[in-house]
Amino acid sequence: MSIKPFTVTVPADIPHKMQQVYTNNYLALTKNTGNLLLFTCDHKVEHLNADFYGVDIHPDAMHPGHIFEIAAHGAAGALATHGGLIARYGLQYPSVNYVVKLNGKTNLGTTMDNPHSAQLYSVDDVIKLQQSSGLAIRGVGITLYLGSTYETEMLEKAAHAINQAHQHGLVVIVWIYLKGVAIADNLVAELIAGIAGVGVSLGADFIKIKPPIHAQGLRIATIAAGNSKIICAGGNMRPLHDACQTLYEQIHVGGTAGAALGRTIFQCSRQEAIARSFAFAAIIHDQVDVETALEIYAKKIAA
Amino acid sequence: MSIKPFTVTVPADIPHKMQQVYTNNYLALTKNTGNLLLFTCDHKVEHLNADFYGVDIHPDAMHPGHIFEIAAHGAAGALATHGGLIARYGLQYPSVNYVVKLNGKTNLGTTMDNPHSAQLYSVDDVIKLQQSSGLAIRGVGITLYLGSTYETEMLEKAAHAINQAHQHGLVVIVWIYLKGVAIADNLVAELIAGIAGVGVSLGADFIKIKPPIHAQGLRIATIAAGNSKIICAGGNMRPLHDACQTLYEQIHVGGTAGAALGRTIFQCSRQEAIARSFAFAAIIHDQVDVETALEIYAKKIAA
Amino acid sequence: MSIKPFTVTVPADIPHKMQQVYTNNYLALTKNTGNLLLFTCDHKVEHLNADFYGVDIHPDAMHPGHIFEIAAHGAAGALATHGGLIARYGLQYPSVNYVVKLNGKTNLGTTMDNPHSAQLYSVDDVIKLQQSSGLAIRGVGITLYLGSTYETEMLEKAAHAINQAHQHGLVVIVWIYLKGVAIADNLVAELIAGIAGVGVSLGADFIKIKPPIHAQGLRIATIAAGNSKIICAGGNMRPLHDACQTLYEQIHVGGTAGAALGRTIFQCSRQEAIARSFAFAAIIHDQVDVETALEIYAKKIAA
Amino acid sequence: MSIKPFTVTVPADIPHKMQQVYTNNYLALTKNTGNLLLFTCDHKVEHLNADFYGVDIHPDAMHPGHIFEIAAHGAAGALATHGGLIARYGLQYPSVNYVVKLNGKTNLGTTMDNPHSAQLYSVDDVIKLQQSSGLAIRGVGITLYLGSTYETEMLEKAAHAINQAHQHGLVVIVWIYLKGVAIADNLVAELIAGIAGVGVSLGADFIKIKPPIHAQGLRIATIAAGNSKIICAGGNMRPLHDACQTLYEQIHVGGTAGAALGRTIFQCSRQEAIARSFAFAAIIHDQVDVETALEIYAKKIAA
Amino acid sequence: MSIKPFTVTVPADIPHKMQQVYTNNYLALTKNTGNLLLFTCDHKVEHLNADFYGVDIHPDAMHPGHIFEIAAHGAAGALATHGGLIARYGLQYPSVNYVVKLNGKTNLGTTMDNPHSAQLYSVDDVIKLQQSSGLAIRGVGITLYLGSTYETEMLEKAAHAINQAHQHGLVVIVWIYLKGVAIADNLVAELIAGIAGVGVSLGADFIKIKPPIHAQGLRIATIAAGNSKIICAGGNMRPLHDACQTLYEQIHVGGTAGAALGRTIFQCSRQEAIARSFAFAAIIHDQVDVETALEIYAKKIAA
Repeated sequence: MSIKPFTVTVPADIPHKMQQVYTNNYLALTKNTGNLLLFTCDHKVEHLNADFYGVDIHPDAMHPGHIFEIAAHGAAGALATHGGLIARYGLQYPSVNYVVKLNGKTNLGTTMDNPHSAQLYSVDDVIKLQQSSGLAIRGVGITLYLGSTYETEMLEKAAHAINQAHQHGLVVIVWIYLKGVAIADNLVAELIAGIAGVGVSLGADFIKIKPPIHAQGLRIATIAAGNSKIICAGGNMRPLHDACQTLYEQIHVGGTAGAALGRTIFQCSRQEAIARSFAFAAIIHDQVDVETALEIYAKKIAA
Repeated sequence: MSIKPFTVTVPADIPHKMQQVYTNNYLALTKNTGNLLLFTCDHKVEHLNADFYGVDIHPDAMHPGHIFEIAAHGAAGALATHGGLIARYGLQYPSVNYVVKLNGKTNLGTTMDNPHSAQLYSVDDVIKLQQSSGLAIRGVGITLYLGSTYETEMLEKAAHAINQAHQHGLVVIVWIYLKGVAIADNLVAELIAGIAGVGVSLGADFIKIKPPIHAQGLRIATIAAGNSKIICAGGNMRPLHDACQTLYEQIHVGGTAGAALGRTIFQCSRQEAIARSFAFAAIIHDQVDVETALEIYAKKIAA
Repeated sequence: MSIKPFTVTVPADIPHKMQQVYTNNYLALTKNTGNLLLFTCDHKVEHLNADFYGVDIHPDAMHPGHIFEIAAHGAAGALATHGGLIARYGLQYPSVNYVVKLNGKTNLGTTMDNPHSAQLYSVDDVIKLQQSSGLAIRGVGITLYLGSTYETEMLEKAAHAINQAHQHGLVVIVWIYLKGVAIADNLVAELIAGIAGVGVSLGADFIKIKPPIHAQGLRIATIAAGNSKIICAGGNMRPLHDACQTLYEQIHVGGTAGAALGRTIFQCSRQEAIARSFAFAAIIHDQVDVETALEIYAKKIAA
Repeated sequence: MSIKPFTVTVPADIPHKMQQVYTNNYLALTKNTGNLLLFTCDHKVEHLNADFYGVDIHPDAMHPGHIFEIAAHGAAGALATHGGLIARYGLQYPSVNYVVKLNGKTNLGTTMDNPHSAQLYSVDDVIKLQQSSGLAIRGVGITLYLGSTYETEMLEKAAHAINQAHQHGLVVIVWIYLKGVAIADNLVAELIAGIAGVGVSLGADFIKIKPPIHAQGLRIATIAAGNSKIICAGGNMRPLHDACQTLYEQIHVGGTAGAALGRTIFQCSRQEAIARSFAFAAIIHDQVDVETALEIYAKKIAA
Repeated sequence: MSIKPFTVTVPADIPHKMQQVYTNNYLALTKNTGNLLLFTCDHKVEHLNADFYGVDIHPDAMHPGHIFEIAAHGAAGALATHGGLIARYGLQYPSVNYVVKLNGKTNLGTTMDNPHSAQLYSVDDVIKLQQSSGLAIRGVGITLYLGSTYETEMLEKAAHAINQAHQHGLVVIVWIYLKGVAIADNLVAELIAGIAGVGVSLGADFIKIKPPIHAQGLRIATIAAGNSKIICAGGNMRPLHDACQTLYEQIHVGGTAGAALGRTIFQCSRQEAIARSFAFAAIIHDQVDVETALEIYAKKIAA
């Protein structure tokens, strides 16, 4: 298929003097395509060590530096993780685009059924990190749980963070999940479309959602998101072919603009993870089909 | 009927240097009539996607841009919606007058019976959006639920927002609803008159209320509101004739100064919605009768 | 009786440059007598519309402007009401002395048995209103409920407001009520003396209390208040003679320095309300007896 | 006994430019002895009027000015009471050293078993009062209840207040009490030693505690307090001889550095209270024995 | 064994102008080795007096000055305790490196099963103390309880403190404990590895943990911590040989970078405590074996 050249539309809440910064950040994150492969690695807080060590997880994943190696040598648009981790490893990986995840919570139980994510960093903290480090911090990520009894506080913090991030020309990705005492089923298509509407009402650039089982269930959501773009969470580690097939359908059937992938990449060896990232990137950035993506992977893994 | 020329009365909390700004905003919002047709579209947060997709809702409504199209080509005094949505679409619709809805909540259940609206934007955020965008942001809207256990917090935030908005010459519309554990019946005329009194005590310019079944039940409320003005919420989508008849009675029997209409307009096709807005505007701004309003509608729909 | 000429004692927390402002405000509020007739009208928030419309309430009371008419043409030292209402009507009544009521709550039930008053305005907000309006804002009022589970928060806010108000030379009236889960009987003389002691410990200029049934029960309280002055709340509408007799006894038996009257004045017609205010003022400011006060009333009502 | 000349040790958190101010304040409060007789009178908030009027309480105590009279003419190092009361009476008593009690709560029940003291004043408020009044405000007092469910908040506020007070060269006395749902017995010697350790860890200059029944039980606590000094609360009104005996033992057996006395002084007549203060001061400042103290009292009462 | 010369890696969130300060602090704390023996003494708040007086505790420990004596004459990298205690004793011990413990709680019961540590000092307070005292304050310590219902608040405060401390070039040690209603067993190796991952994600320089019973259980944790370093808490007083053996295994089997020892040192006499600190320091800084460490101890105790 032919790919349209991409032009960034700058939202109205970006100050004039930050428009070029925002445009540059947007283009860098999306590799000039408008579509996003976000390599999301906030699991050390969210799931403690469960995603980094165990059966079926490659030993490379034990080391925090692993995700930076993949980010530096793979094809994702950016590495999204907490600011402290970027502070500890970023200077060794200056070529990477970074998205600072602003909030997080553990899985230790007290807030699992009714989550309340801790706001670890303000946008001002991010800007200070950007300035002291010189790193290519292109955006921020924030999780918002709708349906929790803490929804009010989290909505306030998310709206404020989006607003502040745009003041500094940063691109914003909002993880919006249906989770909490009010939620019986978080894969209902109407509700997914609903959170897309919340995302665009908050002014998010990208909205990361947990996808429904069938890509068709994304159509209404991607329309409801309007000119905010939907990217789907990857979930557990999956075979490459399956992951590529799902991703292709999310984009071409569901209308999404990319994916936020973590475990499916970082639970592999360094070499495998990097090769996989090229396959996913080809589907997202270059709109290739699954077969072509797998060929790209095969070449990388053989290299 | 003959219409009196309208002069804006500037409240005492508008700073001197902002008096002209306030006057301009007031006149723009009310089309120089003092009466207000507010096109309210905060439903993407309040009701998720339920008002935008489904049986009896025109497919045009699925797209977030729909409400901006209606606002740009219709006859409402302003489009009221959340700041993020204005940030994403506003620059495409620079002719529209905007009212930024400052707070909101979803309908996911945790706060439905005892609501607590999240403060998404401060007035300072609104001013920054106004400055960065150059858009005609004329006022702010804020919802206040009386009877909820969160009444104290929401009263504090509403009073503060009104105060701050007036510091910047913005017109303030307060949505005051009776909702929460203390409320058995939210359509009692005495209570509606009571919230009108709260509205004027807080210094609101316009008070949006859920109207009683009969317009006569508004008389005491519109008197109790004093020189703050009452506008009625539209509620669910209704046949045009009914909606016009109700609106006419609210104004001429109840003493209201307009209406805040959403679903009755935006759940229609673009063309129908625009034509309807002209009918409502004629009743509100030009004080025409229902028959005349329907003729105006008919001409617009035929155009 | 002979009346001593009155000299204002400036408290130690008034900054030097604000001493003259405070003295002027104190003299204006007390008509140079040191005694205070405060026309308190915060009922639109506290009781919604119940005090303004109904059997035995004059129809004049329906209109928010009514209280301003009484304040402008009657004899009270000041009109105490919420800042928003002053913002909406004050410029039409520039001769009135105003006391801005800083907090309030409704009677909708959630906090009735255990009240928590919402802080609607900061002292800074009041100063901004004073500056933008040029109105004679002479003081602030704040309600403090002792015995509520929110006592801690309200004590903090009251102390802070008193402190801030004195920084700006404003006179402070604190409404101290015994109300909440810890209070079985709010008319016990020991407890009333206790709240007087709290009032002077907080540095209040005037302490508004709900009086005990017999004026004798005020003696200990007015002593305990020291050089803070006690004024009694008026409560429900009462016959003029009764109200005057009670007021006289509160002052001459109980040792109070005036009264805070609302319904007994504003539920009457404009003419009656104004005449009543002159009767009360004569007892408070001029130390006349009840008979003389009633004669003053009779002359005013006949005028 | 011979008394060592006293030199103030300035803590490390006093800024250089405030070291002389701190030294002066410390010497003034302790009458150049390093030991402290604090005349504590925060009871109007803590106990309402119960300590000021009733059987066995002298009528002089009804008047708020009574404590100032005693402070001005007696021998205590300072009068400790709330800032508002100092604001109302202080200018009449410019010779008194003042300690501003920063927090307080009533005894109305809601927080009696699990106390939460309201922070009425910040240190900045105290400094403003000092500057506007010119009064000799030498220090601040703050109550900390350990064992309450509000312990976390109160520890934070106490630590912050100590820190801020030292920034301004003010001496800090912390009232540390064992009170709350976690406390079965507040006179256990190990726990009293424990709160002494908390006091020195927070950097308090003086720690006011409720003493155990026997002075011997104070030994470990006064050692645990290190170079912070322990002073004992006086509790209820007591016969002078008993009070002197207890005080003497607290100092010479328990190792304390003085006492914080209120009711045992102020519930007496003005003359008796002043004479008593000289007796207590002699034991504390001059290290006299009980017999000598009583002689001093006798002379004063006869004067 | 041969020891590699140590070079400090400065994290990316240290501002340029603070890089040298951070490097100096890091080298001073670790005695130029990169490994840390932290003499932790926050027990006066955490355990009240229980660790300072009793059977098997040397009487020297009763005096707060004891820990400063040990710090000044022993071999630990720094003394970690609360800011108030440093303020009271620090100037007498100017040669000591200090780590200010920012938060704390007592063991009085209300938060024991579900802890919430009070934030006693901000980083700004620490900087002020550093400036007013001239003391060698090299870092800050903060406790974070994961698994408590207060986890959200404590995560926010810990992240903020780390960020702020790095802004000023201070080294950060985070005490991370598994404690709260969600925690059944706090010595599970997977969870310990999990908190190591949280520590590095927050950007901690050192992470203090409660170690598992066998040092082998630390391997995954020390890998998961990446370039943040793990140090183990010492727990109760133990025989020197046992304590040295455990420490040696933690470093050489578990991969840790030192220890945070308190009671095992300070519950001894001054001489014994100092000698012990040299033994531990030899294992940590000089990588000696247990036998050598005991010889060092023996020489010191004999000196």
